[in-house]
Formats: sequence, structure tokens, C-alpha cells
Amino acid sequence: MTTPATATAPTADALSIDIGRVLNRLRSAAPRVHCLTNAVAQAFTANVLLALGAIPSMTLAAEEVPAFAASADAILVNLGTLDESRRTAFALGLEVAEATGKPWVLDPVFVDRSPPRLALARDLAARRPSLLKVNAGELAALGGAEALAGVPLAVTGPVDLVQVGARTLRLANGHPMMGRVTATGCAAGAVLGACLAVEPDPLLAAAAGLSFVAIAGELAARSAAGPGSFVPLFLDALHALDAASLGQHLRLA
Amino acid sequence: MTTPATATAPTADALSIDIGRVLNRLRSAAPRVHCLTNAVAQAFTANVLLALGAIPSMTLAAEEVPAFAASADAILVNLGTLDESRRTAFALGLEVAEATGKPWVLDPVFVDRSPPRLALARDLAARRPSLLKVNAGELAALGGAEALAGVPLAVTGPVDLVQVGARTLRLANGHPMMGRVTATGCAAGAVLGACLAVEPDPLLAAAAGLSFVAIAGELAARSAAGPGSFVPLFLDALHALDAASLGQHLRLA
Amino acid sequence: MTTPATATAPTADALSIDIGRVLNRLRSAAPRVHCLTNAVAQAFTANVLLALGAIPSMTLAAEEVPAFAASADAILVNLGTLDESRRTAFALGLEVAEATGKPWVLDPVFVDRSPPRLALARDLAARRPSLLKVNAGELAALGGAEALAGVPLAVTGPVDLVQVGARTLRLANGHPMMGRVTATGCAAGAVLGACLAVEPDPLLAAAAGLSFVAIAGELAARSAAGPGSFVPLFLDALHALDAASLGQHLRLA
Repeated sequence: MTTPATATAPTADALSIDIGRVLNRLRSAAPRVHCLTNAVAQAFTANVLLALGAIPSMTLAAEEVPAFAASADAILVNLGTLDESRRTAFALGLEVAEATGKPWVLDPVFVDRSPPRLALARDLAARRPSLLKVNAGELAALGGAEALAGVPLAVTGPVDLVQVGARTLRLANGHPMMGRVTATGCAAGAVLGACLAVEPDPLLAAAAGLSFVAIAGELAARSAAGPGSFVPLFLDALHALDAASLGQHLRLA
Repeated sequence: MTTPATATAPTADALSIDIGRVLNRLRSAAPRVHCLTNAVAQAFTANVLLALGAIPSMTLAAEEVPAFAASADAILVNLGTLDESRRTAFALGLEVAEATGKPWVLDPVFVDRSPPRLALARDLAARRPSLLKVNAGELAALGGAEALAGVPLAVTGPVDLVQVGARTLRLANGHPMMGRVTATGCAAGAVLGACLAVEPDPLLAAAAGLSFVAIAGELAARSAAGPGSFVPLFLDALHALDAASLGQHLRLA
Repeated sequence: MTTPATATAPTADALSIDIGRVLNRLRSAAPRVHCLTNAVAQAFTANVLLALGAIPSMTLAAEEVPAFAASADAILVNLGTLDESRRTAFALGLEVAEATGKPWVLDPVFVDRSPPRLALARDLAARRPSLLKVNAGELAALGGAEALAGVPLAVTGPVDLVQVGARTLRLANGHPMMGRVTATGCAAGAVLGACLAVEPDPLLAAAAGLSFVAIAGELAARSAAGPGSFVPLFLDALHALDAASLGQHLRLA
């Protein structure tokens, strides 16, 4: 809200240095991300966080979420497979996030396909997530960026857009193969949480997290014979990612 | 029920052309399969559908199933990990299937090991699934083909049998390695749903779906060093499958 | 409790012969392990058991656990993602274990991070699991080995310790890469169950199960480019494991 109305966009070289520092801090700090996420994404999300150097925790049990959230460095709220136990877990996790100022990411997956999910997503977006991760369809269902004024946005697509107040970045990495593997987007939400745990500026945290995932995806897709072999290559690429490869591969649009 | 009492079985060449057309239609239409499936199979099933060219959705939440099922092209009802939330989801999904005439697949996994599962499977089979996918043990627990008259059957085993009224097909592809990886059978049920979404004849849809999975499994097992490397190879093979490879590899028994 | 106060520790050669026999019996018997385990670990645990030659079952549904547990050869109780349905499933599974004398493994994962999990773990440990699998942090949270007198312990770490009464073994296999993949420890708990199903001495069963996992992990890590490629290599290595490779690789500390 207090960002300048105009801001000079960084070059890819300058940005890659900044996100390389985020990666190094992430590796040193090994932040814990408590993931309140959907049933399909849980195992892959845990493996993505571990490969990158963060620590996942995953319980949704009402009696456990407060303690796990309180000791986590960031919280992910992913609205997939939205059952009663997840609704309760979200409420408990957000109480902790709001009481402690801990960063949290909202990922309203498929909000465009489910009216109760849309209603919940609107309520949660109004509670000002540190980042709201959406694709174009989900953003439209939520009323567009205008309806979400004040919420830092990470809008994924062929070009990823990060928008925080008047500041925007457009990131051009990624590969269509990522859409042929379930939960890559959901796991990216958890990576955004890990970045927010070590980088307070949501613009830079979002650019870092989206780039880590998109560049690892690009590198994996180069060697993959299909979506099956993509998965281990993607996790290996996240694990091997470093400032030099970010500098070499980061592209802005 | 109205199929002729006798029918000439197709040759492998003729059948491979027909199922190649099903595959091409599946790739063009990218049908969405709403999978009401067990906890162990969810992520792998999603990846199998994506690799083949279909779109998975997975929520079991009571308030979400009606909308997801209504916008899906087929519904999978898999009885593994049969908790209360799944029972409710099945009831809601079947209401949609019956109201709309949408195809649905019933997979009563391990029905031979769990009395409450058997009771539910009998009730659901009586509601005439578009295809009932079983192995020999599950079929026996349900009383055999005679007890299921009028229900199109896809019976998996070393030789897969498809039986729709008086018409039958015996398919001889597959590999034992598939039994060393969890959820390959459950994922096959979802593939049957995707085929029913683009092919109204259950005999042909079942032959197509079972063959896609069994041929991809065979090709993957050739290169796999074990059940671990089998998984990415299997997904890659599903993704690469085309009419030519179906023609080359389809075997009837 | 009745083990001798002193016992001569076996050499690696002697132990490798004994655990090779456990592996051969496991492969012949193909024991079924009913896994009451956390949501993140379910699919990977099933694949680990299948790769090794055991048979997983996984349902948590209250009406199904008694029949599945009664027909299983061992039961795993893993406290991750500790929701109400899991608490109920544990109670039902343990009733069966206690009534039948079936072996069961308790894995109180992250018990050091969640007070309700700790309370439950204490109650369950008092019911004398056939093996209690913990890491150092979890063991400390439970009061240390003294507080658990009479419970056979499998304590994982850079060196794995097995302690049954006065008998102890220290196993030095393993690789740090295993900590970068989710659920390797949870899956090891299921492997311990499979070993207890074919080997009544908990010291030998624990040494076998921990060694199978640690040696397969070591072999996989040699060829892995990262935690992604580690997973298929690890499952392949479990599948390929034999008495000769155990003899070649087993290390005591």
C-alpha cells in the first residue's frame, strides 16, 4: 500500500542476483512451511520443499494445527479438496498467522469451478494473505485485481505476473510439461511460503518462488521424455538450483 | 442388453484401429474425470489421467462434489479406503451421473476383503455402472458375471476380459511389474472413465482403456530396472502412446 | 525382559546372513501389513512394501479396520496427521493386535512437536508395541529409553540403534539423501512390520528392516542426481536387494 506509484523494473541480471540471495537464505534457514493443502498435493508438496531446502509439515488435525502453525515460519492455505476438516484447519492456522504476523499464502485452486470454494476464497482474501497465488481463471472468478486491491498477487500462466501495489514483474520462465503433472502449481504455493519466510518483500519473495519452480521446470523438461520422467528431474533441478543457474536462466517478459 | 447374442470378435488389427480412434478423440476432447477414489491412489491417478491427455478432479467434499461431478465428463467410484466422507461423495456423485446420464465406472477394489465394502459394492452395481472394473477375486465376491447380468464388465488379470452382454474381448497385454506398484489398477479405472467420455460403446471404451494401460505398462517394464523406475517410464509411455504403437503392440487372447 | 543381561554382539557377516534369511522369508511369505499411517506417507509406503515383496493395505475407515487388521500379518501405527479418524482406526487396529498377538509397530513421528501426539504416543507405548520406531528427538520427548523399559526400540539416526532388553545393535548404513525425501522414515516403519511378520525376535526383525531400508538408500544415493531420481532408484534397490548385497554392504558401528 505504501509502495511508490511508479517503480523502475529491474533487469533480469539484477533480479537474478536478488533471488539468488533469497535462495541462499532459504538454504541456510531451512524454514518450516506448514501446509494446509489438498489430499492430492500433500506428498509432492513435501518433496518439493525438501528438495529446495525447506521443511514441510502437513497435519490438518484440529488439535495439532495450532502448535504446528505456531512453530512454522510460514503457512500455506490451499483450497483444493475442501472438506470440513480442512475448513477447520484453515481457521486455526489463520488465527496463528494473524496473531503472530507469520507470512501466509492463499492458493484458491479451481475456485472458478466450485461456488462454496469461491465464497471461502473471498473471505480469506479479505484477510490479506501475504501472497495470493492464482491463475487467470481463478483471478477472474475472484473479481480481478481491482477486487483484490491491497493483496499481493502471484498470477501464474505462460508469463507469471507478480503485482504488489504499483510494482509489477513479469517472469517468462516455465514449460508446458508442468501442466501435465499434478500439483506442480500447488507445490509452487508452498515454495512461495518458504520464500516469504526468508524475504519480507512480497514482490521479491514471489519473484523468487515462482522463478525457482519455473526454472527448475524448464531445466527438467529439457531432459524429460514425458511427464513421468519430468518429476524426478524437476526435484533434482530444484535441489541443484543455485545463484549461477538463476542468473543464466531467469527471463523477464 | 440389446446386443446380439453372437458377435464376431474383431482381429487385433481391426481393434487397434478402433481404439486408436478412441485415443485420438480422448486427446482432442481432454475429458474431465471426477475421481471419487481412495487416498492411496489420488495423486497417481491424477498423473495417469494427465499423462494420457485427460483432466482429473478429485475433491470428496460433500458441498463440492455436485458441482464438480456436474461439470465432469465421467465419474469414477473407487471403493478403496471407504470412510464416511467417501460414502457421502459416492451418493452425491451418482445422483449427478443418474440425473445426467453421464458415464461412471465402479471399481470395488478389495471387495473380497471387507464385508461393508461388499455390501456397498452390491448396491452400487445394481445401479448399473457404465463399466464395472474387477479382478477375478472381486468378481467372485460379487457372485460372478451371472449375478451382474446387464452390467458391462472389465475383468482385469493376466488376460483382461471385457464382457458387454453377449459380446466379449480378451486382451493379452500387460506385465507383472504393474502389480508391484500401488494404484495402477485404480488409475486404470479412471482411464476407463476417460474412454467412456469419448466412446459410447462400453465394449470398445473398456478395450481401449485397458489396452492403453496394459501396453504402456508393457513398454515401461521393458526398460525398467524395477518398480521404482517403472513409474516414470509408465507415465512417459502413456503420454507417448499413439495409434501406431497400439497397432504394433495390441494382442488378443 | 527375559533376555540375558549380557549378549555377544554379532559380526556384520553373521548378522548379514541372519537378515538375509529374514529377507528370503519375507519374499516367500509376502506378508500383508495393514498401515494406519499418515496422509503424506500412504502411497510411498505402499510402494516400498510392494517393492520389497510385502503387501500393503491402507484403509482407515472404522468399519473396515477390524477385518483388514484381522487378516493382516502385522499392523503399523504411525501418528502423523493425527486426526479423529486415525485415532479411531488406531484403537480398532490395536484391539485386533492385542486379541490375536499380531505384531505391531508404533511410529510416533514428530511427537516432539505436538502435545496431543505426545500424550497419545505415551498411551500407545504403554501397550507394548512389538517395536517402537523413533529418532533421537522423539525418544527424548518420550522420556528416553529408561521411560520405555520393556519396549523394543528401533532408534533411527546417522547410526541406527536397536535395543531389546539388554541386547543392542548399532547399524551404520544409510545416506543423508534419505532425509530429503518425504516419508522414507514412515515407510521404514512399515518395513519393520513386514519383518516382524516373518521373524519373531524383535532385535533381528528390527536389524533386518532398518538395514533393508538403509542399504537400499545407500545404493540409490550412489546413482542419484538428487532427491527426485533417488526415489525410483531406492524402490528399484529394495526390489533387487538380496542376501549377497546385504552381505556386501551391511556395516555395524
